[in-house]
Amino acid sequence: MNMLTITLDPRAKEPLYEQLYGYIKREIQSGRFPCGGKLPSKRELAAHLQCSRNTIQNAYSQLLSEGYISARARSGYYIAEMDGIIGLKPTAPAEADDAVQSGEAIYNFSYHGVDGESFPYAAWRKITKDVIDEYDPDLLRLGHPQGDFKLRSAIAHYLHQSRGVVCSPRQIVISAGTEFLLQLLIQMFSEDCIYALENPGYEKLSQLLRSSRADYVPVPLDEKGMIPEALIQSGAHAAFITPSHQFPTGCIMPASRRIQLLKWANQGDDRYIIEDDYDSEFKYSGKPIPSLQGLDHGGKVIYIGAFSKSLTPSIRISYMVLPEKLLEVYLQRMTFYICPVPVFEQKALFRFISLGHFERHLNRMRKVYKKKREVLANVIQKLMPGAEIIGANVGLHFLLRIRNGMNEDELIAAARRLGVKVYGLSQYAMGDGPAGQQPLILLGYAAMKEKDLETAAGLLKKAWF
Amino acid sequence: MNMLTITLDPRAKEPLYEQLYGYIKREIQSGRFPCGGKLPSKRELAAHLQCSRNTIQNAYSQLLSEGYISARARSGYYIAEMDGIIGLKPTAPAEADDAVQSGEAIYNFSYHGVDGESFPYAAWRKITKDVIDEYDPDLLRLGHPQGDFKLRSAIAHYLHQSRGVVCSPRQIVISAGTEFLLQLLIQMFSEDCIYALENPGYEKLSQLLRSSRADYVPVPLDEKGMIPEALIQSGAHAAFITPSHQFPTGCIMPASRRIQLLKWANQGDDRYIIEDDYDSEFKYSGKPIPSLQGLDHGGKVIYIGAFSKSLTPSIRISYMVLPEKLLEVYLQRMTFYICPVPVFEQKALFRFISLGHFERHLNRMRKVYKKKREVLANVIQKLMPGAEIIGANVGLHFLLRIRNGMNEDELIAAARRLGVKVYGLSQYAMGDGPAGQQPLILLGYAAMKEKDLETAAGLLKKAWF
Repeated sequence: MNMLTITLDPRAKEPLYEQLYGYIKREIQSGRFPCGGKLPSKRELAAHLQCSRNTIQNAYSQLLSEGYISARARSGYYIAEMDGIIGLKPTAPAEADDAVQSGEAIYNFSYHGVDGESFPYAAWRKITKDVIDEYDPDLLRLGHPQGDFKLRSAIAHYLHQSRGVVCSPRQIVISAGTEFLLQLLIQMFSEDCIYALENPGYEKLSQLLRSSRADYVPVPLDEKGMIPEALIQSGAHAAFITPSHQFPTGCIMPASRRIQLLKWANQGDDRYIIEDDYDSEFKYSGKPIPSLQGLDHGGKVIYIGAFSKSLTPSIRISYMVLPEKLLEVYLQRMTFYICPVPVFEQKALFRFISLGHFERHLNRMRKVYKKKREVLANVIQKLMPGAEIIGANVGLHFLLRIRNGMNEDELIAAARRLGVKVYGLSQYAMGDGPAGQQPLILLGYAAMKEKDLETAAGLLKKAWF
Repeated sequence: MNMLTITLDPRAKEPLYEQLYGYIKREIQSGRFPCGGKLPSKRELAAHLQCSRNTIQNAYSQLLSEGYISARARSGYYIAEMDGIIGLKPTAPAEADDAVQSGEAIYNFSYHGVDGESFPYAAWRKITKDVIDEYDPDLLRLGHPQGDFKLRSAIAHYLHQSRGVVCSPRQIVISAGTEFLLQLLIQMFSEDCIYALENPGYEKLSQLLRSSRADYVPVPLDEKGMIPEALIQSGAHAAFITPSHQFPTGCIMPASRRIQLLKWANQGDDRYIIEDDYDSEFKYSGKPIPSLQGLDHGGKVIYIGAFSKSLTPSIRISYMVLPEKLLEVYLQRMTFYICPVPVFEQKALFRFISLGHFERHLNRMRKVYKKKREVLANVIQKLMPGAEIIGANVGLHFLLRIRNGMNEDELIAAARRLGVKVYGLSQYAMGDGPAGQQPLILLGYAAMKEKDLETAAGLLKKAWF
């Protein structure tokens, strides 16, 4: 830290040390002095401010006693870690970091997050080190706007093998999160495009479209997914769907419905389907169901995927597969956007996939998550026989229908009082939503331990029955 | 690689091995088989496809001879690196990776890129390894939407010390590139907001605003920067400026003009100034000129910076400082956007800054770039006495006014014929631009070696005089 420059006023009412103490405290509180930063030594600062060393000593002592700074033997004084001390963190953002904010909840059934303990950290660490050790000049250069070609090639191969997606790496655009891919799509589609959203559905979509000033209509679902007649009536041009595992209801779209939706898309030049395949890597029984994109012969499907569920949300790597016609639009108009993923991360992920770690990880996680789902479902069925589990045997969450006379808010509040955070379906519904049904609760189970799933289910039983 | 599944038809005209060869070749060309992937052994594949090993041998031999696959002793057959073989790379995107595409130009005066040789790779490598070794559960969790608090704290401190920016970490939003920060701003501002752009100016701004369907007006400059009267007349609400080092003309906005622009901003509730401080770390003579943001008492300036010039463009970390009123809008409406920078990168950069490496790097680079600028300017003045160097002694590029009777296109083409790529000012100008002047050429010197700067200047002399 550079020298502190403050004019101490010897004629002020406030003693000099208090003036200095107040100044440093304000700087720390405002965050202008960074946590961990070193303060000047007492001797230096006294010389610089032309005051006695006692003044500095008194100011530092006061700051020490209040926890703003800490002393290290034979080293000096340092700004303390601030998080605990001062209220500088912004007011709770809506949902993006609910895992962070729910400090009070002991058990959180958020559908965000993954099983951190099963992350192949050793392999990832080794690859990280290998990539940084093999100095490659590309690590310091701007990469391709669509992302590293080798990584795109590996993703294309994976999608072909595992998800039945038919594509070449040329068609892939890598970005940092689904939101940024959607921004690109919104800019590529016509300004008048109306987006059809599943209702209920992923709540960020409507936020994002609203924020981007795009028009959207909620389209109702039946047990097969988005209802084609309702989609036709909506007047929408682009339908956003989750056919492999509808979020949040958990249904799998059968082939007949997929073909109906493709037919709808093929009936208009400006019609498209955006397929979000967010967690279909984890199917626990029966055959894997290939992507809708694989059925598409008209270039009508944009396939979107990410490594948030399959690896970790902190890596921030997502991708989309553009049909040829949209790829042309992208190449003509959108390549001024630089790929937001650091080159380093792209190289590490390519290596992780090509060495087979990704496939092994998925195979392992399929077992881990299958077990968690079974543990949670079993204990719920045992403790709460009236509760109904809804959703296909896929993914990282299911719904629970509770028939105990409580409404959704009451269920959530009762669970919360016992330290369990659960999520009501209505937060994913637009408009009135499906009326006249018993309330539905969403339980995500990926990030919790098996033991905690059992304990938390016990608490839910206590809260609800 | 999993087993290949193709139905070989013994009754077809084409021999079996050719059917297999054709199939594998098409899969490689389409990119569905990833480069570096391993092919099944001949024995395995023969058993799987129920054909003779000779068939496989013949197909593999053909692929080998054509360079699609390679053989490694005692290991097997692998898909070759594809870049050289097949034309899968997309057609040249406009400008985002001009460094990559200009394969033919031997010397490229692009203003993108940095001096890669001076990057403190050893320190960065050590920090990368330290961060990955100290396993921190946060590395696998979604971070804060505005970015890591410690990194924001370190940035706030740096901006305060080095750029006179007055802010707390609360006000900082970290993102992956200026484009994504601008997307956030466009969504936070009114739909009817008209943006004033410097003319000439950074060409991506108009692309981005057009793509985002936002209205903008070009506003002319004089030697002090954006002309206040023209700004008033433009009817714009938000002015995008580069006061520390105007891009591309290179002028520094004097205090009087800064105050005029702030006055303009203070005359309307919906008026803002977006200050892009893209390369002002590198000032080679005189006192550093603090940011415009530091002069602002009305909460009217959004300060934008990045590590692209000061560290490396491949790291993709940028940030903006929001005034309190806009911060409220951000917190209310925009936190559903997840910070696109991987948590790992944020931790590494925080450590890089807090250990003092960033400051040391900047101090070193200031000397390196100063020297490069001097070398280039001196050799130009010596070889081309008629050429005029334009732009303050700041940053990583300057302009050259050439008076030899050639127009801009002719100058660029003549240089290109000798293997030197230069950039004409008109590509940064909107509308007719300043008429009646001799053509101006932009020369970026950061990424080229001193020796190459001298050689390339010699070639320019040969091309132009």
